[in-house]
This record gives sequence, C-alpha cells and structure tokens, in this order.
Amino acid sequence: MSDLEHVIQPFDARLVMIGSGCIGKGVLPLLLRHLVLEPQRLLILSPDDDGRLLAQEFGVAHQAEQLDQNNYETVLDPLLSAGDFLLNLSVGVSSLSLIQFAQRKGVLYLDTCIEPWEGGYTAPDKSLSERSNYALREAALQLRRESAQGLSTAVLTHGANPGLVSHLIKQALVNLAEELGDTTPQPTTREEWAQLANRLNIRCIHIAERDSQFSSKHKIADEFVNTWSVDGFISEGSQPAELGWGSHEKALPEDGYYHAFGCQAGIYLQRPGASTRVRTWTPSTGPTHGLLVTHNEALSIADYLTLGQGRQPTYRPTVHYAYRPCDDALLSVHELAERNWKPQSGQRLLDDEILDGSDELGVLLMGHARNSYWYGSRLSIQQARALCPYNSATSLQVTAGVLAGVIWAIRNPQRGIVEPDELPFREILQICMPYLGKVEGIYSDWTPLTGRHSLMPEQTDESDPWQFVNVRIT
Amino acid sequence: MSDLEHVIQPFDARLVMIGSGCIGKGVLPLLLRHLVLEPQRLLILSPDDDGRLLAQEFGVAHQAEQLDQNNYETVLDPLLSAGDFLLNLSVGVSSLSLIQFAQRKGVLYLDTCIEPWEGGYTAPDKSLSERSNYALREAALQLRRESAQGLSTAVLTHGANPGLVSHLIKQALVNLAEELGDTTPQPTTREEWAQLANRLNIRCIHIAERDSQFSSKHKIADEFVNTWSVDGFISEGSQPAELGWGSHEKALPEDGYYHAFGCQAGIYLQRPGASTRVRTWTPSTGPTHGLLVTHNEALSIADYLTLGQGRQPTYRPTVHYAYRPCDDALLSVHELAERNWKPQSGQRLLDDEILDGSDELGVLLMGHARNSYWYGSRLSIQQARALCPYNSATSLQVTAGVLAGVIWAIRNPQRGIVEPDELPFREILQICMPYLGKVEGIYSDWTPLTGRHSLMPEQTDESDPWQFVNVRIT
Repeated sequence: MSDLEHVIQPFDARLVMIGSGCIGKGVLPLLLRHLVLEPQRLLILSPDDDGRLLAQEFGVAHQAEQLDQNNYETVLDPLLSAGDFLLNLSVGVSSLSLIQFAQRKGVLYLDTCIEPWEGGYTAPDKSLSERSNYALREAALQLRRESAQGLSTAVLTHGANPGLVSHLIKQALVNLAEELGDTTPQPTTREEWAQLANRLNIRCIHIAERDSQFSSKHKIADEFVNTWSVDGFISEGSQPAELGWGSHEKALPEDGYYHAFGCQAGIYLQRPGASTRVRTWTPSTGPTHGLLVTHNEALSIADYLTLGQGRQPTYRPTVHYAYRPCDDALLSVHELAERNWKPQSGQRLLDDEILDGSDELGVLLMGHARNSYWYGSRLSIQQARALCPYNSATSLQVTAGVLAGVIWAIRNPQRGIVEPDELPFREILQICMPYLGKVEGIYSDWTPLTGRHSLMPEQTDESDPWQFVNVRIT
Repeated sequence: MSDLEHVIQPFDARLVMIGSGCIGKGVLPLLLRHLVLEPQRLLILSPDDDGRLLAQEFGVAHQAEQLDQNNYETVLDPLLSAGDFLLNLSVGVSSLSLIQFAQRKGVLYLDTCIEPWEGGYTAPDKSLSERSNYALREAALQLRRESAQGLSTAVLTHGANPGLVSHLIKQALVNLAEELGDTTPQPTTREEWAQLANRLNIRCIHIAERDSQFSSKHKIADEFVNTWSVDGFISEGSQPAELGWGSHEKALPEDGYYHAFGCQAGIYLQRPGASTRVRTWTPSTGPTHGLLVTHNEALSIADYLTLGQGRQPTYRPTVHYAYRPCDDALLSVHELAERNWKPQSGQRLLDDEILDGSDELGVLLMGHARNSYWYGSRLSIQQARALCPYNSATSLQVTAGVLAGVIWAIRNPQRGIVEPDELPFREILQICMPYLGKVEGIYSDWTPLTGRHSLMPEQTDESDPWQFVNVRIT
C-alpha cells in the first residue's frame, strides 16, 4: 500500500453521490482515503435506508430522495454549485439529464454507465435500436458535439468495465508491441492507437471476466444472487446483446442488425445479452463460456480503434463483453430466463457472506502473432478485503476505476464530456493499480476453434478462427 | 408404509447385481426388503472398493471384476444358472450382450438403460445415428424379433426414466380421459393406448423433471457434481439430443435428422443433449428450462403411442426428456461444455451431504382440452431418507422402478425382451407408489408460448403452441 500514500488529491468542494448500492458503499472509503474531503462535504442521495445507514457509518450527510425526471433539478439545485462533484452511481437516473444539469452549473460529473431514466431500457414505444447502449452513447456524443468548449468535465462510464478496461487495452497494446518488436513510437492520438491495433493484427477483443466468488448460502427459488447490483445486472442483461463489429467479419449474424444512425461501430442482436453465450478465455480455468451482455465499452473501444468509418471501415476489431458471472448469478440468469425475464422477487447481494473466490477481469486481445493475450486484474476476495473495507473483488475493480476517474476530473475540470478511451491510461492505471491484486499479461494459444468438433460436427468457419460465428455458442 | 408389507416376493434363486453406484447402493435395501432373498444369494459384481464396502455393509457377496467384451461370459457363467437374476446397473457394460447371455442360460435380466460397451457412445468409427439410443433400441428390438418364443424375461430400461414414467403416462391418460369425459373402455392394447392419446389430442409429452437438491459444499473448479451417477449423466448428456417426433410437427429442426433404419418414431439433433435447452413446466416453480438429454423413453413411448407408421404416421406425439438437474449439476454441465465435453477430473455424488430439496419427476401431457397436465412424483430428500436408507430423492424414484421391474420379471419369467410400455402399469405403480412421495396430477394453462416476446420479438409459431420450434430454446 506504500504507493497509495502518494495519491492524495486536494478537493475543496462538495461531492454528491447518487445511489447507495454496492458501488456507492465500496467507493466511499476510497474517496475519503484519497481525496482531501471532510466527510460532511460528502452527501449521499438515496431513497432507501441503506443510504442513511451508510451515511451514518461514514459520518457523511444523507438525503432520502428518489430522483426522477420531474424532480431532479429541484432536488439537486440547492445541493451543488460550481466546482462541486456529482457522482452518479444509481440505476435508473438519466446520465444525460444529469450531465446537462451539471454542465449548466459548472459541476463535475462521473458515472459508470450511461443510464436512461427508469424504464428506459424496456420502453415499449421505442425500438430495440433506440433503447440500446449504442443509442445512449450516440446521444451523449451528440450532446458533446452541440456543447460549447470548456464546459465542466463529465466522465462517461468510468467504473471497471466500462472504464478501467479501456486503459488495460492500451497497456496490453503497448506490451504486445514490445513483445512483437513493433518499434513505432507509442501512440499519442486515437488514430495512432487504432493504427497500432491494426499493425498488430488485433481481430477480436473480449472484455473477458470470470467471477468465482461464492457464499455458504445456497441460492433459493425466486431469488437473484449477485456480487454486484442485482438491478444493474438484470437491466443490462435484459437488453439486447451489443458488440463492436470488426472489419474482418464476413457476415452479420442472422439476428444481428446495424443501427440506422450514428458511428456504425456496433451492432445489436435481437436477443437478451444474458441469454447470448460466447466462448472466451480467462486465466484460472482457460476456455470459458461467458455471456455477451451489452456494455458501453464494446462500442466505445471499437469506435476508438476504428480506421476509416461507417459500416465498411479500413480497420476495426470486434469488441464485446464475455462475462462469466459467479455461479449463483449464472443460476439466477437461468431462472430469470425461465421467468421470461420477469425479475425474481428476492434479491441477495453477496458481500460479507462471500467465503472464497476471485474476480478475474481483463482484456483478451486476439489475432496477433502471439495468438491471444489476456491482460488484467486477478483479485481474490481476501485481497480485496485487505485492500479496502466494504468491497468484494468485483466491487473493488469498479470502485478503483471510479476513484481514478474522479481524481482525473478534479485535476482536469474543464474537459467537457469524455469517454474512458480519451483519458490518459498511465495516470489512470497508476491510481487503480494498487487495488487490482495481481495485474498480469498471459499469452495463450487458445482460439474459439480449439477443441471443437470433439463429439460431433459443429458449424464453424475453419478459415478464420476470429469470426464471431466461431465465438458465439448456439 | 403399511401398503408395503403386502409386497413380499418369493425368490429362491440367486441375484447378481453389476455395478455399485448410487442406484446399486439404493436398490439393495429395497431388494432385501421386498424379495424373500437371503443376503448370501445376492452378489455384487463391481471392480472398485465401493462395491466391496457396500457388500460388507449388507452382508452380501462381492466379486471385484470389471466386465468387458472379452471376459463377461467367463466371469458370469459360473455365477448364474437358470432362474437366477442378472441386474445390470452399470455404465459401460453392454445390455445386448448380457441379454443374449442371460437368455441362453434362462436367467432373468433387467437394466435401467440400454448400454453399449464402454466407449460405444462416442466410438469415432460410428455415425451419430449409429451410436444413438435409437440405434441401441432398434438393436434390442431386432434381437427380440430374431428370438424364439418363451425365452427368459429381459426387462429393458426399467428405472425411473426410462421405466416408471411409461406407467405414469398411462395413469395420466386414464385420469385425463375421466376428466375430459372420454367414456371408451380403458385401453388394453398398445393401439388402444395410442388411440386414447390421439382422441385426447395429446401433442407433446415431456418427461419433465426438476431436481432442487443441494448440499452445503460449493462445487469447485474441474468437478462434476450430481445427485446420481456422474459418469452416467456425462455419457448420456454428451450424446446427441434425441426425441420422439410427433405427427403434428411441421418441419424438422435445422439440425434434426431422421435415421436411415428402424421404426422412425424418433429423430436426433446434431448437438449434445446437455447443451440443448427446452421450455417445460414442473410443479414447484412452473415454467422451467430443462435439458433435452437423450433417453430411451422418448423413443419407446413415441413408438408405443403411434398410429400408422414410419415418418408420416397418422398419429404420434412428440416425446422427450426435459431435465432441470440440480443446481450443481447445471453448473457442472456449463463447465463440461467449456471443456468441449472433456469430463472433469473430479466427481462428487451428492448423497448424505444433501441439505434440502426434492426431485419432481413427472410426465407433462400437452395439447388436450385442459391444455397441460403434469402427473408424477414429488419426493423430498427428507421423505426419501425416511422411506429407504441409502437413497436420495433422485435415486429412490429410480430404485423403486428397478424393484418393481425385478418383481414383475420374477412373476413373469418367460416373456422375453420387454419394454416398460409393455408392462402392466397398475401392477408396477402399485409397487412403486409407496416410495414416490406425493404423487399428483396438476393442470396448468402454461404453453411454451406463455410470456414470450416480453423483452423483444422471438421466433415462434403462434399458430400452434405445441410445435417443437416453440419448445426449444435457441
């Protein structure tokens, strides 16, 4: 922990945190440790008793309030002035509304997900395309295009993933360049990063995560169990699967669709991400079957690493999340599908009751001369607890990302709306690193064709292992 | 238990039991309770220490022997004479070889599955069709056609499923006929049963099972956990999915194939059953997602209830297994698929360590005027333990079926090869019933279209809920 003592960020304004879920709870001790911020300048805004109890525990302020489309300005206006920080860790409070509000007032902003207002993910009057993460991101980019220069900084989607993983990818590309003898100077612009990825022949990038944490208490019927926000996982898992669509892909999936607007870096599948399985690779067990849950990073990273533009770019990798949640969450997803996606009436967040396990969260870069390279954080529950109270392995990877984003925004208060990919990766990683357990890069000769056809013929494209048709499990 | 005291079956010969897995272990106390059989006339033939210890515990004989294609006659010959019983509860010992041997010697025979010799399910020189359960069943039927009359009785596949469920279907049809006012005299022939099913408009029959048993010990990596034989589940789960193919089905599945030989009652899918998910319904939780694992009953029941013949019969229901294994087994299957079906190196059988849960094993008859009717056994682990030691809820449903089949064979020693569907259902159910917990019939308005399209459009056939395309999860 000796490195940590050096990251102490002065901050002489107020911080309002919306939400008191597991990320809010986990980030509090980090904020109070790394920001020069007296507890009374920190306010938790949350409707439930969890928030009140949490605030008491940390000696911070609390206001019981459920923000909605009608009340958010009235509620927030007296709480925030120029230079203050609005930290949105809620589910169902619109990121775009808050950003516009914050920028009008000169308030800094950060979230971990571009959230719509409650119900926005499933609004029946909107098409799947309109309620996708792609559409939410395009709306944020549109807002940026229409904004004046020099507005207060609003950091989009800066938790673990999305967030931290964008920086892990850059470090992984730098490591790979060195390994493969690419001597071009390290990229300094978006286009140079895309050129590097292209030179290295990166075809697919998975955000490859495996959560092996478990408790002693067996999941019961009609209960969703998870190591992070149950509402959050259900809402993103119920959205259509979305992925950044690479220039090497030969054909759209049968259930795959482009959007009629925006940058065209991503497509969506007409099925819930939590029921869309993909082959990936994670360090502890190797070949892994994960869920292709939609996430903003799949789109922002694919867009960031694009050369050319539109549906036929010169270069773009396929990018998506491949998430093996903890066992109880996998069983919960099975049950959720049995219920035709009607959420269970019971919820259980695994935190103090976790007995053992770890969260391996990394980026898997595939297609290059060394085949496949996983780079990321391998964090056990024991390590997480020792590093920071109120955190599991899963939450600490997120809260470290939030902390780093908050510090960067305070240091750079007038950058307007920014995506993780646009932040300086070394600075962010330096802040996060002490909280990530073992951070390592591992080469592997695994491809999605490895070990296939073992029992019977399967539908594969043997001419190119990195086609999505090989990755997807049908 | 008072009913039980009446079922005492004299048996003055020897019984050789091959295998000492969970079914062998569970059936021993039942055999010794219901047969007039001194323990020393019972011999366990099994290669491992489990068998020796089990034999010691029950005071029965034991011989350590792994039967294979080369030694089985030499080993068995001195152990069995006319009138004795050969009970095959093994995995990987050929049913057909044993039946031929038994019938040559005038020995009675029963198994719970038509087993090939070890490796037969995955023999690379055989086509999927040739190593299917369909092919195994056709070979048994062929053997019967070629046999003389009056050979010793050989009961095929008489555990829970296959086995017991064939009798549950008849009882369910009788119950439905009464409910729906069908006044035709109760069927006495195969064709009359098929006519009844047709009159009642039974379109689909699922063997709908949900196992909710669990222990306090979390499944670890590289471990397959199950409430019954791990080897058995892996071997059948790795086989292609197979189902009886109904006359109402409009189109073969894309990956579905007829066989080039035999009765044509069933088809197979070119994918492992354990990775083939289907929508079904079970009492405790209602809508359930199960695995379409190949099972002999899917074929024998569909064949038994056929009017006409071949690929375009006048009437045949679609019949298949829809198995929601216990949570740990579901996770084990997920891991097995990650390993491209290479079995885990660790195995754990849940028996004494089970904390709670039940096995609901029934038949779900769909398409009739009351829509859907589940009829079967709801047996908790507590009930199972109280009813018979050495059993879980899962094993007791199987061992009760084995017991009933053994008793029937002893009572009817010269019937040659018979399938469960050909046995008298009332007599069998009478023997099993005391061990099945709550046996009940439940009507439901569920169809595989219930609650669909809730999040987004799905590919369904709205004109007929009972098409397999609606049942299958893709």
